[in-house]
Amino acid sequence: MEREQYLAAIKPRMPEKRYIHTIGVMETAIELAKKYGEEEKKAETAAILHDIAKYAEIEWMENIVRAEKLDARLLGWGSELLHGPVGAYIAESEFALTDEDMLNAIRFHTTGRAGMSRLEKIIFVADMIEPNRKFDGVDRLRKKAEKGLDKAMSACVRHTLAFLIDTKQPIYPLSIECYNDMMKREDSEG
Amino acid sequence: MEREQYLAAIKPRMPEKRYIHTIGVMETAIELAKKYGEEEKKAETAAILHDIAKYAEIEWMENIVRAEKLDARLLGWGSELLHGPVGAYIAESEFALTDEDMLNAIRFHTTGRAGMSRLEKIIFVADMIEPNRKFDGVDRLRKKAEKGLDKAMSACVRHTLAFLIDTKQPIYPLSIECYNDMMKREDSEG
Repeated sequence: MEREQYLAAIKPRMPEKRYIHTIGVMETAIELAKKYGEEEKKAETAAILHDIAKYAEIEWMENIVRAEKLDARLLGWGSELLHGPVGAYIAESEFALTDEDMLNAIRFHTTGRAGMSRLEKIIFVADMIEPNRKFDGVDRLRKKAEKGLDKAMSACVRHTLAFLIDTKQPIYPLSIECYNDMMKREDSEG
Repeated sequence: MEREQYLAAIKPRMPEKRYIHTIGVMETAIELAKKYGEEEKKAETAAILHDIAKYAEIEWMENIVRAEKLDARLLGWGSELLHGPVGAYIAESEFALTDEDMLNAIRFHTTGRAGMSRLEKIIFVADMIEPNRKFDGVDRLRKKAEKGLDKAMSACVRHTLAFLIDTKQPIYPLSIECYNDMMKREDSEG
């Protein structure tokens, strides 16, 4: 499927604002793919589909988790945590995406995980720094993305965790595994 | 054993500064026990023993973890994470402490965990706010301890995690389970 077909398919499934965000993620992901040696088409498609489940009903998503035997820890964590893994399920079942790396980039774009691939990091980072994002500190993250993909990923996961703690929100275990993994890499980089 | 006997037993096992800290933790833990309805003697003894393993050799502590089949995740996390569980082991094996709640208060005083008891929270909080502690934000934590034990525990675990992230240090999984548990309580308190 081509870019325009994917975009036409996702547009009716989300509000205008989220669609504009998605275009931003797509453009940023393509830039990062060029810069860091990833296939642009993979980055483009994973970016377009990353929020495909964002507005799905929570009961339906929880049923998918049970029926497809996805990580049972997801149940009870709410829509924000479900839409990545369920998005990957939709990408595979409705859009016939088979590339495991692209599916993982969609699956883990909210939580991160230990041992993320280059493409997974590109989608995670692009989701946070795309031009429509306005939060405090986003410019620092954009600068990190110019310096290195691991540097950007580390800064993004640290920012996410600090925000969750500041706002007293729960932290999903995979995000800590992601953080610990990235800190170990920073350490070995010296 | 009486207070003076415990103090005499721990004094040669740590530098002067750590001994002074321990006295501070003991006094603070007794105050918190009075305020929040815990047995003072339990708080006193757990506080005196909480850092008993702080200056043990790391290889020896890792051997204890293996020999006693303590949580294998502890291996490779360094002295800071080992000294709580190994401290509980010393309290039990050398000091014949049998009270599981006191042992847990020593065991989890660095990481916290989900479902902490009143005594566990008292030792965790006292360790952070005792009068010799000087870090930025400690006065805010002391004020929380006047308002409620759960409020203080929440603030302490949030402070600890924010500090670890700020300084790019790894986070032990139990600490996130502790944080998520405390945030759920805050939530249900409204």
